[in-house]
Amino acid sequence: MRNIDLKKEFGASVRERRKQLGMSQEALAERADLHRTYVSDIENGLRNISLENIHRIARALDVHVSSLFLRIETGAFPKGAAANGFNGTRRAKN
Amino acid sequence: MRNIDLKKEFGASVRERRKQLGMSQEALAERADLHRTYVSDIENGLRNISLENIHRIARALDVHVSSLFLRIETGAFPKGAAANGFNGTRRAKN
Repeated sequence: MRNIDLKKEFGASVRERRKQLGMSQEALAERADLHRTYVSDIENGLRNISLENIHRIARALDVHVSSLFLRIETGAFPKGAAANGFNGTRRAKN
Repeated sequence: MRNIDLKKEFGASVRERRKQLGMSQEALAERADLHRTYVSDIENGLRNISLENIHRIARALDVHVSSLFLRIETGAFPKGAAANGFNGTRRAKN
């Protein structure tokens, strides 16, 4: 994890997790109380996102903050790592 | 991890890891190329630190970013989680 572009990798984690949930960028933005273009920028690796917004995104994606980084470090989301026990098979309602 | 003050918890992780390494705030600041008062503020939960500075701090502490958050979520640093295999018994040289 030394020489990676963490903004790009973090954005890819967010996008992958959002798609796992079958969630649109608009729905993620609404759940996280962030602007849709800001969420788009995060996913595209264009934002040096702050700790508090990382937390909002993780909550909106029902995942631990650590899981978003483990996905970067290990190439996959950890099993059973969802904040509420989400296991990757359920579909989001919105 | 829903209603915690993530800035304070993150700061506590940084302080605990720094002390594990026997490292001063000055040494951490120097390794991370950040100001010492900024590192002090981070440890005291006063800074909404950005992704890039989280990365700098993690590298300076020879630990994965995920480990700093796993310490918050689980109460302890994961075993074998150090970025370079640090096992918690070695002392930092500076």
